[in-house]
Amino acid sequence: MSKKDKNKAPYIGVDLGGTKILVALVSHKGKILEREKQPTMDEEGPDAVIARIAETVQQTLRKAGLDAKDVAGIGIGTPGVVDSRRGIVHIAPNLSGWHEIPLGRELEKRLERPVVVGNDVNVATYGEYTLGPGTGCKAVASIFPGTGIGGALIFDGKLWEGAHGAAGEIGHVILEANGPICGCGRQGCAEAVASRTALERDLRTAIRFGRQSLLSKMIAETEPIRSGILAQAAREGDTLVLEVLARTAHYLGLLTASLVNLVDPEMVILGGGLIVGCEEWLMPTIRGVAREHFIDQADADAIRIEIATLGDDAGVLGAAMLAKSVIGG
Amino acid sequence: MSKKDKNKAPYIGVDLGGTKILVALVSHKGKILEREKQPTMDEEGPDAVIARIAETVQQTLRKAGLDAKDVAGIGIGTPGVVDSRRGIVHIAPNLSGWHEIPLGRELEKRLERPVVVGNDVNVATYGEYTLGPGTGCKAVASIFPGTGIGGALIFDGKLWEGAHGAAGEIGHVILEANGPICGCGRQGCAEAVASRTALERDLRTAIRFGRQSLLSKMIAETEPIRSGILAQAAREGDTLVLEVLARTAHYLGLLTASLVNLVDPEMVILGGGLIVGCEEWLMPTIRGVAREHFIDQADADAIRIEIATLGDDAGVLGAAMLAKSVIGG
Repeated sequence: MSKKDKNKAPYIGVDLGGTKILVALVSHKGKILEREKQPTMDEEGPDAVIARIAETVQQTLRKAGLDAKDVAGIGIGTPGVVDSRRGIVHIAPNLSGWHEIPLGRELEKRLERPVVVGNDVNVATYGEYTLGPGTGCKAVASIFPGTGIGGALIFDGKLWEGAHGAAGEIGHVILEANGPICGCGRQGCAEAVASRTALERDLRTAIRFGRQSLLSKMIAETEPIRSGILAQAAREGDTLVLEVLARTAHYLGLLTASLVNLVDPEMVILGGGLIVGCEEWLMPTIRGVAREHFIDQADADAIRIEIATLGDDAGVLGAAMLAKSVIGG
Repeated sequence: MSKKDKNKAPYIGVDLGGTKILVALVSHKGKILEREKQPTMDEEGPDAVIARIAETVQQTLRKAGLDAKDVAGIGIGTPGVVDSRRGIVHIAPNLSGWHEIPLGRELEKRLERPVVVGNDVNVATYGEYTLGPGTGCKAVASIFPGTGIGGALIFDGKLWEGAHGAAGEIGHVILEANGPICGCGRQGCAEAVASRTALERDLRTAIRFGRQSLLSKMIAETEPIRSGILAQAAREGDTLVLEVLARTAHYLGLLTASLVNLVDPEMVILGGGLIVGCEEWLMPTIRGVAREHFIDQADADAIRIEIATLGDDAGVLGAAMLAKSVIGG
């Protein structure tokens, strides 16, 4: 490839999740040209998963009529604590047997292209930063409430991954020191009051103790409460659902304010299925409560609180753009 | 000056406080060569205070037999929200009439040397980072509990001042969402449960409601409770003082953990009169509670929690070293 061609070469973005591997061929401008998906089958262990990632990348390239040498590089987002400089996954609690796995080196061996490894939430945030609402900013923080609450920090246009690859664990910032016990065994973490898990716990507890709710008819007792169901119940005026959504939004507003008061970014991006699916009941309260709690009121209006826009593509796009920022011109 | 001489030229460090102006002549290696002190008299307004700063700098230089042209530059730490790139103090609630004051330009005009302006807590942290326990680190965060709770962040060896100069307001990270009202009017901020103000409030309230304490005999009801008095009462086994110090330490431990879980530094430095004066009753609990709450337990031992060592010199030393990092070689 000539230097000029190389600058325009596409990248591969990989989003490694607990259940599936998403791969996309992404143009240097951030457009998805081709995509492929495989189950992770993480019970087979790291070697098998890494082989399957390489295979899925090859499938994607074949679909596009390309070869590995046609891409400038490969980016991959993985759960867990990552040493991105050395491409090592220190530990990934969601993937069985992942301890000190040299994911970067292993993929480079198989695909013969440079590989950039990052934590999944960092990578998705980098996607939202480069191609989503964060475009044009230099300092962005994110909050992704789901089963837990993930987060990431971008300063001066660069991901801040921490001294040990563990930055952005905003789910374990303490919000309510004497509050409920968290999934991590500690007390009052943001996850224990503002995650989807906390929301489901509060809804199920209230129903079990006799509170009326449309949810009782809409889903079975053990069924997960999907965002669409929550939105439908909220739209029909379900008092309990509205109350618990308001409480979740209040805590997410406080968490946003804590984040802003500590790191003073230009923008906070909130994402994930719960936020996107229940936007109209969550975002106004999150924005309102957060702004009220900004200590620097002079700049309160300058700090934007936005919703993530890339959806399930944030991981593959972010991984490709991160690879470009590290490898490319 | 030749280039070589310039690299070895000293700096002036200024610590502008609500009550006094501290000035030091500091060698390029961080040794205090001369010092001077004047009252701030901030009621006279910004112009008079700036003139007094310049005068105190000249006095310091005269004592050392030097002229302004003999120093490489001047650093100054000031309360409030600062635009350090432009040397402007946006707002300093502790100094009357300080709104959009071009402190850097005004001092440069008077002293004809380059001036670097920073927020006081940022500057003191920079001092502890370069000449105190942080020496050798690249990623440091600080917590200074006092009347409020200040903090600062250093990433990749550089102060992170935020997108609007307001980063590090760790006193207004929410720790106890349903906790006591903060001095800022909001609820459950770290300052409302872990500052010296919170500690004094809890002690006075308990005594007013009849709790026994040596403090009742040691000081008058309206007298401030100094760290030395607290330490003396603690040493004599005062149950109330020990209990309130333990509670303060517990909350400071949670705050340290929140900070570590979010930004993952190499070191957290705690400083200020309360921490230094009551170290033996605070630091063990702060360290223990913090470590228990680190979400990345694999790296828990790698994260050091240290006490500030520069005392009242942190401001002038940090200001001089910050000026050196910006201006010098």
